[in-house]
Amino acid sequence: MNRQLGVCYYPEHWPEEIWAEDARRMADTGIAWARIGEFAWSRMEPEPGRLDWGWLDRAIDTLHAAGVGVVLGTPTATPPRWMLDRHPDMLAVDAQGRPRGFGSRRHYCFSHAGYVQECRRIVTLMAERYGRHPGLVAWQTDNEYGCHDTTLSYSAAARAAFRDWLAQRYQSIDKLNRDWGNVFWSMDYASFEQIGLPNLTVTEPNPAHVMAFRRFSSDQVVRFNRAQTEVLRRHSDAPLVHNYMGRITEFDHWAVGADLDIASWDSYPLGFLSDRLEATPEHKAAYLRQGDPDMQAFHHDLYRGVGRGRWWVMEQQPGPVNWAPWNPAPLPGMARLWAWEAFAHGAEAVSYFRWRQAPMAQEQMHAGLLRPDSAPAPALAEAAQVAREIADMPEVDPARAPVALVFDYASAWAWEIQPQGADFDYFRLALAVYRGLRKAGLSVDIIAPGTADLSPWKLVFAPGLMTLPGALRQAIAAGQTTVVAGPRTNSKTEEFAIPVPLPPALPGLDVVVDRVESLPPGAQVPLAQGGAFAHWFEHLDGSAAVVQATADGRPAMVASGKLFYLAGWPDAAALGQMVRALCEGAGIATEDLPEGLRLRDTAGHRFAFNYAAHPVTWQGREIAPAGVAWWPR
Amino acid sequence: MNRQLGVCYYPEHWPEEIWAEDARRMADTGIAWARIGEFAWSRMEPEPGRLDWGWLDRAIDTLHAAGVGVVLGTPTATPPRWMLDRHPDMLAVDAQGRPRGFGSRRHYCFSHAGYVQECRRIVTLMAERYGRHPGLVAWQTDNEYGCHDTTLSYSAAARAAFRDWLAQRYQSIDKLNRDWGNVFWSMDYASFEQIGLPNLTVTEPNPAHVMAFRRFSSDQVVRFNRAQTEVLRRHSDAPLVHNYMGRITEFDHWAVGADLDIASWDSYPLGFLSDRLEATPEHKAAYLRQGDPDMQAFHHDLYRGVGRGRWWVMEQQPGPVNWAPWNPAPLPGMARLWAWEAFAHGAEAVSYFRWRQAPMAQEQMHAGLLRPDSAPAPALAEAAQVAREIADMPEVDPARAPVALVFDYASAWAWEIQPQGADFDYFRLALAVYRGLRKAGLSVDIIAPGTADLSPWKLVFAPGLMTLPGALRQAIAAGQTTVVAGPRTNSKTEEFAIPVPLPPALPGLDVVVDRVESLPPGAQVPLAQGGAFAHWFEHLDGSAAVVQATADGRPAMVASGKLFYLAGWPDAAALGQMVRALCEGAGIATEDLPEGLRLRDTAGHRFAFNYAAHPVTWQGREIAPAGVAWWPR
Amino acid sequence: MNRQLGVCYYPEHWPEEIWAEDARRMADTGIAWARIGEFAWSRMEPEPGRLDWGWLDRAIDTLHAAGVGVVLGTPTATPPRWMLDRHPDMLAVDAQGRPRGFGSRRHYCFSHAGYVQECRRIVTLMAERYGRHPGLVAWQTDNEYGCHDTTLSYSAAARAAFRDWLAQRYQSIDKLNRDWGNVFWSMDYASFEQIGLPNLTVTEPNPAHVMAFRRFSSDQVVRFNRAQTEVLRRHSDAPLVHNYMGRITEFDHWAVGADLDIASWDSYPLGFLSDRLEATPEHKAAYLRQGDPDMQAFHHDLYRGVGRGRWWVMEQQPGPVNWAPWNPAPLPGMARLWAWEAFAHGAEAVSYFRWRQAPMAQEQMHAGLLRPDSAPAPALAEAAQVAREIADMPEVDPARAPVALVFDYASAWAWEIQPQGADFDYFRLALAVYRGLRKAGLSVDIIAPGTADLSPWKLVFAPGLMTLPGALRQAIAAGQTTVVAGPRTNSKTEEFAIPVPLPPALPGLDVVVDRVESLPPGAQVPLAQGGAFAHWFEHLDGSAAVVQATADGRPAMVASGKLFYLAGWPDAAALGQMVRALCEGAGIATEDLPEGLRLRDTAGHRFAFNYAAHPVTWQGREIAPAGVAWWPR
Ligand SMILES: [Zn+2]
Ligand SMILES: [Zn+2]
Ligand SMILES: [Zn+2]
Repeated sequence: MNRQLGVCYYPEHWPEEIWAEDARRMADTGIAWARIGEFAWSRMEPEPGRLDWGWLDRAIDTLHAAGVGVVLGTPTATPPRWMLDRHPDMLAVDAQGRPRGFGSRRHYCFSHAGYVQECRRIVTLMAERYGRHPGLVAWQTDNEYGCHDTTLSYSAAARAAFRDWLAQRYQSIDKLNRDWGNVFWSMDYASFEQIGLPNLTVTEPNPAHVMAFRRFSSDQVVRFNRAQTEVLRRHSDAPLVHNYMGRITEFDHWAVGADLDIASWDSYPLGFLSDRLEATPEHKAAYLRQGDPDMQAFHHDLYRGVGRGRWWVMEQQPGPVNWAPWNPAPLPGMARLWAWEAFAHGAEAVSYFRWRQAPMAQEQMHAGLLRPDSAPAPALAEAAQVAREIADMPEVDPARAPVALVFDYASAWAWEIQPQGADFDYFRLALAVYRGLRKAGLSVDIIAPGTADLSPWKLVFAPGLMTLPGALRQAIAAGQTTVVAGPRTNSKTEEFAIPVPLPPALPGLDVVVDRVESLPPGAQVPLAQGGAFAHWFEHLDGSAAVVQATADGRPAMVASGKLFYLAGWPDAAALGQMVRALCEGAGIATEDLPEGLRLRDTAGHRFAFNYAAHPVTWQGREIAPAGVAWWPR
Repeated sequence: MNRQLGVCYYPEHWPEEIWAEDARRMADTGIAWARIGEFAWSRMEPEPGRLDWGWLDRAIDTLHAAGVGVVLGTPTATPPRWMLDRHPDMLAVDAQGRPRGFGSRRHYCFSHAGYVQECRRIVTLMAERYGRHPGLVAWQTDNEYGCHDTTLSYSAAARAAFRDWLAQRYQSIDKLNRDWGNVFWSMDYASFEQIGLPNLTVTEPNPAHVMAFRRFSSDQVVRFNRAQTEVLRRHSDAPLVHNYMGRITEFDHWAVGADLDIASWDSYPLGFLSDRLEATPEHKAAYLRQGDPDMQAFHHDLYRGVGRGRWWVMEQQPGPVNWAPWNPAPLPGMARLWAWEAFAHGAEAVSYFRWRQAPMAQEQMHAGLLRPDSAPAPALAEAAQVAREIADMPEVDPARAPVALVFDYASAWAWEIQPQGADFDYFRLALAVYRGLRKAGLSVDIIAPGTADLSPWKLVFAPGLMTLPGALRQAIAAGQTTVVAGPRTNSKTEEFAIPVPLPPALPGLDVVVDRVESLPPGAQVPLAQGGAFAHWFEHLDGSAAVVQATADGRPAMVASGKLFYLAGWPDAAALGQMVRALCEGAGIATEDLPEGLRLRDTAGHRFAFNYAAHPVTWQGREIAPAGVAWWPR
Repeated sequence: MNRQLGVCYYPEHWPEEIWAEDARRMADTGIAWARIGEFAWSRMEPEPGRLDWGWLDRAIDTLHAAGVGVVLGTPTATPPRWMLDRHPDMLAVDAQGRPRGFGSRRHYCFSHAGYVQECRRIVTLMAERYGRHPGLVAWQTDNEYGCHDTTLSYSAAARAAFRDWLAQRYQSIDKLNRDWGNVFWSMDYASFEQIGLPNLTVTEPNPAHVMAFRRFSSDQVVRFNRAQTEVLRRHSDAPLVHNYMGRITEFDHWAVGADLDIASWDSYPLGFLSDRLEATPEHKAAYLRQGDPDMQAFHHDLYRGVGRGRWWVMEQQPGPVNWAPWNPAPLPGMARLWAWEAFAHGAEAVSYFRWRQAPMAQEQMHAGLLRPDSAPAPALAEAAQVAREIADMPEVDPARAPVALVFDYASAWAWEIQPQGADFDYFRLALAVYRGLRKAGLSVDIIAPGTADLSPWKLVFAPGLMTLPGALRQAIAAGQTTVVAGPRTNSKTEEFAIPVPLPPALPGLDVVVDRVESLPPGAQVPLAQGGAFAHWFEHLDGSAAVVQATADGRPAMVASGKLFYLAGWPDAAALGQMVRALCEGAGIATEDLPEGLRLRDTAGHRFAFNYAAHPVTWQGREIAPAGVAWWPR
């Protein structure tokens, strides 16, 4: 495996006089390539049809001359102002009915055919011009699909496209009425033309209606991206990448990823801890300058899956960012730790965002490797250290993990549509299970719901999976792998109805969910073997063997052979004892890691990462705060 | 008194093949009638003017054949999709100016004349067809008026109707300007046509303007309902019912109820505890699976009043619901306790919602008496037990309670418009007083503000009554009953002005509210006799005798003869000692009940209900959690 | 210095029969003048063009005859309803795109040329009629500019005016693109006509765009006010005043004040404590009925500066108000204390709001000096006491304070646009520093950012000043005064970019902010000399002397000569020790005041004010709660 450092660079932001010096300093730092171009449409095409490639030609050549390649971004996340004169109706519309206007970025609706055509046009021009450039490392399509809540649009364009999508999916309006249960509140439609988008209803809309809209909206992202990949493949052999943003679940990354060669994501550990993680204040305080110890690894493992083994960090936080509610500075060493953690999880490249802090516009408070005055920012030395270290390391392949976690975007939509308990969130549940596995020292693979063969893993978790796909059902039925389903697994049909026979309806497991309870904060169901259920508890009926019970004797986990069903949302203590017990049964060794320490095994090495703000001693090794250690397995 | 069980049933949701079996099982359970039809307009009239009564004929006949009657709902809460093509402007508009669209229910504006006419048409057709059917037990008009905040609409139809209403009420624009005090901020109008709805103003609109809009909006509900009752009475002798929803105060239930024969309400104790009750986290945790011990009884007593003695529970929660922030399961026994509590308060019928859990659409996570697979859900056995028990009980009449509480919807509007302290809420105040009475073991009648004769009660509370109606003033002046007014009682004219002479201006009581204070959470005014005022404190002037004082010697309650005025919002401890003292003075025996226990006296029996999650012993009797006990008085 | 009492009076609210008695009672109370007229447009001009001055003539004459002068308000804050028929597009539009309608007050957009012309017309008529009236004391323009968030408007009128303003400021669109850094996300414009208002963008708009809009919006207030002052000066020699509202920072009061003769503000200590002060619950509880001990003084000192020495309290809270979340009553004595505190800070007049509590409309729960029934409210006696006391006091001039604080409206906009930490607020920072100075017993002057001469003060604080103006830079460079800059001081250019060389770039101080951290609640950076930084911490580089360090040895305050730079937001303990040390260095004596006590020095006296709810003893004097004491210096 090839390990590289990259950096995000915006030549259009800086005087051309300093480009060569920038390139030289990049090379000196050990940076292999720069991502450029992804927000520069207004400089590529200042007026409709008037193209200006000169500056970009020179920028690419300057970098290339210094030995720095380019990852070239298509600029479609930032249509220029003139685009709106050509397509006044291209804007997305929010759920309150307000157009989301020009003046920042991502101001377009995925369903607007005219804008998709404009994207094809500019991408064609770029691909023709740069598709064979020797400095070209890869293409990035657009930027952070779905960021700023942009997947869903309630525009007229989206409504028209949704009706077409529905007509294709259901073929007859009677089928749609039946599948959605529209009889329920006299919601029957006489034609597809009567169907609106599911916003601004008096009370909640039919969840089947919303689910269809969510599937449609995800499909529109896939279509939008594919319009670009089709063009790029025609003119270039460079690999295609998109940079996903952390904890964006509004579209199916597995589906977008299928059209790309490499998955990448934008890793902002401190920003994410501040703005998108459920955690106690104590947890957030303990990891204030390090980030959550499992959030990055989760995404690394997810995108390794999405990229079918090939993945990058396209944007790596180097210092304080500008966009979280609070923006502290990383502990010294974290810019190195984060990079090494990515490599340990199999990343081929880690690219810092950004080369030099921009003194202007929206992100002027976002740190770079250089300060705005071109002096080194603290992360520059850490990046250089990583570059030296990876030069010394042998290339390795990631090891297959003993444990896998199924991650499914449709389930995220389902439980957002119908949480049933206000704090039930699919990503949160998946991350909680993942965290439980990591605390036991395990490496984890994250796999798609359509996975048909579970034999590579000894133990597979599939919590909260809305619908069990046929292939996965057969893999479970094969019975070769220990599988832990539940809670809520297989509790809905694809049309968002409760299946009859009742859930979980798992092969060979005689158990039925008789009723479910969501629990407010503070309410718990203690378990006999330790820990408790919080958030969620299911009352089970059936003859399956009870392997864990509540303190008052009700089933908490049942099993048949290698198939387990979990009747609630386990807290950390419950997960701890369950993971130990299940791993023991599956023949997997576990560790009891100190707070803040995490492990990751590659084919040849075991890596340890200390996310704590204090030194941690483990198996005789003391690891400093923000410290990384590795040794042969 | 006749006691019956009912159930809510939706034949249109199920294959016709299972209707007969459903009916048989209902009868076997002891269910006397099913409420049907209230959301089925799209199946009664699939296209405008094309009526399909066949399925409904057969459903009613099938139930009737099994000995199960029907309460037939008019389907006007769910106009079909085609209705919007006929009346595109029929939608309500929210306070932000957004139409509240199709896709759920209650998508209509009460003021839209065209839609009212459509309702008259469909109700006429139903009444003509089923008005004399032998299985018909009663009619339900529409469903849960005001649910989902639907009483107020800011539509063009509402604005036009409001102007007419104002013209009728004030006759001249000068009178309106004077009555509202429009001189205040140059808000004078030159004609009724200049008056808008009181939304989207820069800062708060004139409270007199809002109060008029609130009175108008309530009147529109009365008018809407009356359009249906006029039709139904022409074609049917069955009693007319509406099912009110818990803690809906946006329209005057006394006024709607005057056009009906029976009041009913929809009782969801766990949902209400979760989503519409102010309480400490400890209180909510203690009653998580039982519901608040006073919320149901309050509504029972309220609707006994609204129904002039005749009232039902139309929808009784049988298990977890789907719509509250969190949805736990009831303790075993609660589905029985809730039913018995309703009967003890005088209900003629309790109807569980719903027969079978629907696997589709919005309420698929709402439990029924049956699971979606037709297996019994836990409440089925409890319902059957209640059926057996009521068969064994003698019929009884409810007893007149010794204490009454005045409940007035206009006051709820008034203090919502002008809380003066952010947490001052009329319903909350009324429930607090009610709870204080219940904790002393008292049965309570809830009475209308227009009540002209207080002699049936020994003690009457009238807290927070915006305006004292003339009849009630005379009843107080009569001096035969101990009356406790205040805080805020009679502090506004009907036109939302401070009356001069100043409040409370009660007959024979020389006291004036010199100034008022609202108090943030944590701020209190301790009382000399125990407890404290919270939320609200009034400085009193005058010669009336001080019967309770603050710890620093200011009047807390003054009296003259049997008339008392309370100068603040008493906390639980203050209410406890005040209720004991006042009852002693009025010759009413009180009890000191353990936490969670509540009593209710009928003509012949005393009932005890244990809302606690643990056994409670009282007067030598141990009552299990969720337990009900009764014995002859 | 002349000290007077005034009162706000609305003759149009009351029967003409009682005006003379009102005037007599005012005079008896010792009230020198009444402010009238500012909301009475609908009575001055009931129909467009039909003027009715009779009542106002008689009201002014009646007051004058009793020896009570008038401050005459222009009625432009409440355009009558007919104005909207003439100018339907005159309404402001909120950031969500909704017109802010008729029905309360301040329903106009500052940028609407037609409405400005109407204002000129009515003000001309008033000025011609009353400009030489012997009873005229002063003119008030409009009322509380900016109250109810009315400075910013997103109307079509505002957009058109903004484009003109931009064209004037930048002259070329290329310059605007460069100055704003529009290259950043392809935000380049081809013409001024393409620029929209910075609302409803997908994610945050360019801060330079928002900053320009904020400067423009402030300028529009200045222009609007100037349209009136130009008219008034033409017809009257009476001084011109505006009544600013507390903690309104959306427009530049220094700029509006430059066109006026006297600054005044509306002081509602209890309302402000409840609705617009960050403080712990304990602090808010301790000062519930007194108000924050520094909030009033801060505004007194600010408006003394804005008024170039001449300032009033135009509206003084006399009892509970109606508009805060909670509205308690002042402690007995506070209506006197607040007035005396204003006089001690140099006020020429304190005017109570209002004479008699209005029983109708929006403010009916707002106390006055009289109750609605004309009986005295508690504050009347306190006002009369103040009148007697000021008659006995010698006239004095305010003393120059030893310490000054720079206050800059543009900085308030800057950190609102880009807080970087969610709780970073400029006013809060300024008030925190001010509080630290006051706790040390100091009198403070508040000065404009353009101040060119710092020699009058021994010590000047300039925290959080977005951009250091040239004059102030030169004054600092002069080095005669101890100046404390930071945090964030001079960290942006006027076009909202990070300057290079990097901040703070202060004359003679070799230090650079290497990176900044915002800190969530609870996170702190402890300091070696005591206290800690919260909210904000800057990493400093450079050779400047470290005079305060963090507990782990990083620079917390650096200095060169008399210039200090503070690297964070000090908590109360840190401010305490820093103020003591800096004052010692600057030769200023400090005190260690007990909780709740505050001092203020005039030329001849030292005043002490006890804001605590209990007696306070200091230097042998016991001061009662709400007590005021003074003695010669
Ligand atoms: Zn990014
Ligand atoms: Zn219901
Ligand atoms: Zn005011």
